[in-house]
Parts: sequence; C-alpha cells; structure tokens
Amino acid sequence: MAKALITTVPFGDKNRLPLEMLEDAGIEYLINPHNAKLTEDQLAELVADFDVIIAGTEKITDKVMARATNLKLISRVGVGLDGVDLMAAKKRGVRVSYTPEAPSPAVAELTLGLMLALLRSVHIANTQIHQGKWQRIFGRRLAETTIGVIGVGRIGTRVLRRTKGFGTPRILVNDIVPNYELSREFKLDWVTKEQIYSEADIITLHLPLTRLTKNMIRREQLMTMKRDAMIINTARGGIINEHDLSEVMRTGHLSGAAIDVFEHEPYKGPLAEIDRCLLTAHMGSMSVDCRTRMEIEATDEAVRFLTGKPLASEVPQVEYDVQSQGL
Amino acid sequence: MAKALITTVPFGDKNRLPLEMLEDAGIEYLINPHNAKLTEDQLAELVADFDVIIAGTEKITDKVMARATNLKLISRVGVGLDGVDLMAAKKRGVRVSYTPEAPSPAVAELTLGLMLALLRSVHIANTQIHQGKWQRIFGRRLAETTIGVIGVGRIGTRVLRRTKGFGTPRILVNDIVPNYELSREFKLDWVTKEQIYSEADIITLHLPLTRLTKNMIRREQLMTMKRDAMIINTARGGIINEHDLSEVMRTGHLSGAAIDVFEHEPYKGPLAEIDRCLLTAHMGSMSVDCRTRMEIEATDEAVRFLTGKPLASEVPQVEYDVQSQGL
Repeated sequence: MAKALITTVPFGDKNRLPLEMLEDAGIEYLINPHNAKLTEDQLAELVADFDVIIAGTEKITDKVMARATNLKLISRVGVGLDGVDLMAAKKRGVRVSYTPEAPSPAVAELTLGLMLALLRSVHIANTQIHQGKWQRIFGRRLAETTIGVIGVGRIGTRVLRRTKGFGTPRILVNDIVPNYELSREFKLDWVTKEQIYSEADIITLHLPLTRLTKNMIRREQLMTMKRDAMIINTARGGIINEHDLSEVMRTGHLSGAAIDVFEHEPYKGPLAEIDRCLLTAHMGSMSVDCRTRMEIEATDEAVRFLTGKPLASEVPQVEYDVQSQGL
Repeated sequence: MAKALITTVPFGDKNRLPLEMLEDAGIEYLINPHNAKLTEDQLAELVADFDVIIAGTEKITDKVMARATNLKLISRVGVGLDGVDLMAAKKRGVRVSYTPEAPSPAVAELTLGLMLALLRSVHIANTQIHQGKWQRIFGRRLAETTIGVIGVGRIGTRVLRRTKGFGTPRILVNDIVPNYELSREFKLDWVTKEQIYSEADIITLHLPLTRLTKNMIRREQLMTMKRDAMIINTARGGIINEHDLSEVMRTGHLSGAAIDVFEHEPYKGPLAEIDRCLLTAHMGSMSVDCRTRMEIEATDEAVRFLTGKPLASEVPQVEYDVQSQGL
C-alpha cells in the first residue's frame, strides 16, 4: 500500500476533501504528529518508508532524503521551493511538483490588508485601546504614497491589480527581467532595487528565497530607506535580515514593518517587542479557498503519481536553475 | 478683534497652514486646552466670547449656544452634524458650515484596511505574536464573501470603488433612496437592511447619526446576522448599540468587528476585552492629506465669514430636515 507523509499543518482542516482523495485512492497517510513546522531531524525520523511527501516549507535536505529510501515524489503545498534541495532530489530520482498559482490571490490580499493597516497604524491603535489607552494617530493614504514592489510575478502582479481603486500616483517596480507587458495594464516605473529602497514610501517583497535573495535587505539597504518608510514581507523569512531590521527599527528608523514570514517559525524574537511591527503567523496563503485549492492540487499530484498518471504541475527546469545557480 | 475657538484636536499639527490663515486674517484663536473631546460643560465654560467655533464632534447644544453670546458661525471640521443642535443654531441665528467631501477618501481607505484585516485576523495574530504565541489562522478573501454596505453616499461609494480589484462576487447595498446610477459602475443588489443583516458576510456602515440611525443595530439585528459575519463601523458611535455588540460577541456570535467610533470617546469599555474586536481611535479621517484639507476648508469658512465674504460650504436645508424630522 502506497504511503504519503503530510508534513504541512493544518491540513484537511477546513475541507476534508484532500484526505478523502487519499482514502479513495487507497493511499495510507500520516499527518505531521508534531503539529508544527518540522525540524530536519524530526522529518528525518518520520520519513523512512513513505513514497510521497505532501510538503510544507520545512527543510527537505539530502540528509532527509537519504533516510527516505522509498521516496519518489515531493508534492509541495504552495509555491516556494527554498525548503527543498532540488539538486539532491534530482540526484536521488525524487520528482518534485508544486502549486504555483493557488496561493497567489490570498497572499496578494493579505499584502493589501497589511499595507493599509500599516499606513493607518491600525495595529498600534488596536493594541492601545485594548490596553485602555486612546490616541488618534495620523496616517497616510495610498494616494499619497509611492509604492515599491520588488518581484512582479504571480503575486506582485495581483498586488498591483488590487491597488487600482486607490489612486496611487507612483508605483516603482523591480524584477530580474522587466515585464513591460504589465505597463500596458498599470502605470509603472521599472527601476533598480536601490531606487526602490531610497524612493518608495512603502516597499513590498514578492520574491522566492534563493542564494541571491537571502539577506538581500540588511542594515545597509534598510538605512537607505526613508526614515518614515514602511516595509512588508509576505514572501519568505530571511530575505530581510531580521536581526538588522529589529536593530534599525529600535533606533527609530522606518515608521512601520509588516512581517508574515520568518527565518525560524514559529517566530519568537525581538520584532515582537516593537509596537510598530505588525506581525502575522505565515498566513499569506491561509484563506480557506486558496489553502483548500493548494491542498487539493498537491494531493491530486500525489494521487496521480501513485496511480501511474502523469504529474500535472511538476517543477520546471527553471526552478532547478534558480536554485543551483542562484539566478 | 474677531475670535475663533478651535475645539477639535489635534489641529494644525501636521500642517500649520490653518493657523497661519487665522493669523494672517488677524483672527485671535484658542485651541482646546483640554486636548481631548470636550464635554458639554467644558465647552460651555470655554465658549463665552468667541465669534466662531471651528468644531469637532463634541456636542454643541442649545445650552452651549446660550453661553456663547457672540457666536455667529459653527464651522465643522468634517461632515457629521450629529453634535450640532441645528434647530438651536437656526433659532439663535448661528450659521453652520462643514467640509462634506474632505474626509471621504480617508474614511473609505481605512474601511478597506479594517475589512481586509478582519477577514484575515491580522489583529489577532499580531497580538498573539507580540505575546509570544503563534497560531496560523484561517481567513477569507473578499472574493469569497458577500459585502453589505448600508449608506451609499460619499463614503460608501468610495468604499465600493476600492473593492473593485478584489473580485467580490456579490455586493448588497441599502440607502434611503436607491441610487441606480451607481449600478452602472458597480454590480450591486439594492436590498433592505434586513436582507443585508441576514445575508452579508461583512457589513459596513456609512450613515450619519440621526434619530433614525441611533441604535439602528441592536441585539435583535445582530442576532439575525450570520454567526461568522463581521461588522465595521467607521461612521458614528451609537449606530450600533455598543452594549449589545459586546454582549452578543461574548456569546461567540459574529467572527469579528472593527469599530472606529464610539458613543463616548475616548472609549473605555467591554469591547476592549474582546480579542476579535479590532478597535481604532476615531481615525477615519486621520490621513495627513484629508485631515489637512478638512482643517483648511473649515478655517477658510471662518476667515471668509469674519472678513465679510459669503460662506462656501454652508450646511444645506436637507441636513436641517434630517435632524428635525429624523429623515
């Protein structure tokens, strides 16, 4: 009997369909018994005789795969591949698939929510009133700000689309290759990352975590931002160096930050001591509809594979190139 | 020398221009020395020999006007007239002007921010992480919800415009007189308030506070809402009965509420004990640009009046009718 290890949690929580799909196909499954993001050692201990991992963002390293002697497929619930050692997978003949479209609308919508909340200090006022304090805090409107979007792919584009009704006068964008097609739909300025750092009032990141983007934003970059700039990370922990961000904000630099993703999750750290940091728990993709779609698509890949059908969303070569060459 | 009492605070804080306008016109002014919303008694004590009140949301009653023997103009910084006894003003020959357009974009944008934050439990996650807890909370997207807008005037229309990029499938709207013109720009269902209560997932109020809207939403109405519905009030405190809202939410009814306006401000009360209540400090109009525009427009009215020019934005007869007849 084929066996699937489901590492991502929660799973099948709001909609049981993915579990029923496995049951109907006669696939035995185990849901991550730790009920939290697995460490490399925890995963290595669990993984021994599973054919498939239906995976979250935990690290699936060469060491883990060495223990997983039956492993033939890693089916990612989501789009980021920074947790999966693709070279090791290729070497060991483990195929990898993912769900690149499914999380995008939910991540884009959370990003807008964080943007508007930051601009109006909603998080600060909420904390104050719950503590019995009352202060009417001034804010800014999107129509008064310059937005900077770094990474204009599936999610970045959806963020742009959702800002349309707000009358933002100036949108700065950056990506490895400018997508001038997008400039037909939106009024965009394609600029360097350095220009975004120094000119944008609110900066949002929609990039994968790779060797090139790891620690892309450190003290040096943060200090080139405007003193009252705001930064949002709903992409991956580690793109902004957390230690530098907390140090810099402690000095009064930046008027706000909204961080949904962290180097180590669950997050405990100094950003939690800074009131103007708006913190959420890696909830970008956590709308019921998107999460359900991700779980169904990733489960469908597992079922297809284990019943001899071709994969529908295998990770393309370019993702291997990005990881191996840090493109 | 003409004298103006500025009751609303903060004033001239982010932009000194309104104060300079008064100084240039040779108008003496006093800014509310209590630095908080004035009670009727505090205002009655202060108001004695002023010609103009540049007013906030405090109660300007017949009793207050009786003490203000020189008063000739109330110039409201903002749009709501629930604080001003218009009949008493008319009787005493005190003219009233306001700034109906200026706050609208800021209120609409805060409303969207509150809506997105509520839908994704941003406020709950933020509080938890700042307390050292970590829980990935499921949310909903606007594309999965039915929005209900009660009051589709200057602000309600701007809220609709800002939801355009989010793909909301069904928008229920209600106003005294349906504005079918708007249905050309938006896909709207004009329905009764009762239908909105029972069918919408997220309800937002954009109404003035009048005899008819005071306590419009009590226990009875709240209990007809879906158990996981959400409600937003950025209009005026008292339209939703606060006591009933907190009682009903304590029993687990409603999945969230975002309240920016309260019956008594600064607010201290039981809503602050409910984590899923997102509370802000009457900050709807508090974007720098809109607040500045409101202060400039209201000051301009005072200067025009005191230098013998016609008022530019005197309160129209319909507002007197609304207040006297509860239209």
